[in-house]
Amino acid sequence: MHANQPTNQPTNQRFMRDAILEAENGIKKGHGGPFGAVIVKENKIIGRGHNKVFKENNPTLHGEMVAITDACKNLKTFDLQGCDIYTTGEPCPMCLCALMWANIENIYYGCTIKDNEIIGFRDDKLNSILNIDRKKITNLHELDRNACLALFDKYNNTKDKRNY
Amino acid sequence: MHANQPTNQPTNQRFMRDAILEAENGIKKGHGGPFGAVIVKENKIIGRGHNKVFKENNPTLHGEMVAITDACKNLKTFDLQGCDIYTTGEPCPMCLCALMWANIENIYYGCTIKDNEIIGFRDDKLNSILNIDRKKITNLHELDRNACLALFDKYNNTKDKRNY
Repeated sequence: MHANQPTNQPTNQRFMRDAILEAENGIKKGHGGPFGAVIVKENKIIGRGHNKVFKENNPTLHGEMVAITDACKNLKTFDLQGCDIYTTGEPCPMCLCALMWANIENIYYGCTIKDNEIIGFRDDKLNSILNIDRKKITNLHELDRNACLALFDKYNNTKDKRNY
Repeated sequence: MHANQPTNQPTNQRFMRDAILEAENGIKKGHGGPFGAVIVKENKIIGRGHNKVFKENNPTLHGEMVAITDACKNLKTFDLQGCDIYTTGEPCPMCLCALMWANIENIYYGCTIKDNEIIGFRDDKLNSILNIDRKKITNLHELDRNACLALFDKYNNTKDKRNY
């Protein structure tokens, strides 16, 4: 995909690359798991965030939550209608519902929720307890999983890898 | 229920009263919906919060999320094992999963998720989209619904009532 991709191209891998860079930044700083996200409106990034569970000692600070907070602060609204999110990992139920409250239109994710198990996170387990059937959620789209698997692998090989 | 209730009494209405006071404080300040929560460990409140969606322009700041953030800050940990939460409204899926990430043991709620419809919030609609069967979630306990319905009624009658 080229940088001069038409602006109406929905699945823009450029934005997933930005989400990966955001996650890598978080890993480098020891802030949390390999989860980064950017929120896009009219082909421009209007919010970004990475997982800060360890940094802030706060289990709610997943990448998507931090990105929603940032986008809402920048746009001065709690309504992100017309925005899409690109996130390195398929959202856990907390983030999935937060994205619904925020009225996010499309959710592009890299690694699947089952991939989180490989790196030791409980997302899929919690999804099973809540019995959420993701096939019925029509605005969830997988994108660029291989690049995100490489990111997860990088996290798995960090010396001070932690889980929650 | 008396203040000298045995410390091992699990469903302590005193804590629900504190959650209601927290919600009333939020309504008075125009911070958000009528949702307050306290987190309790060994019979002491170690975190509290009310909905701040309007105040902070942030759709993730439900009462439970604010209370988790406060409790984790106070205890300097992202793991609230051994803690219970008392919340004026049954948690939406976002908050329910956040409470799981935080390892909260028991969730005591006042109004049911269906009661939220009366005051114009989408909790039950989002729960239906995610198809969560709450009967299967064994640590969810209804407590003191009538007092919380009175709180919801108070919110419904505020002049500048808003929804999201």
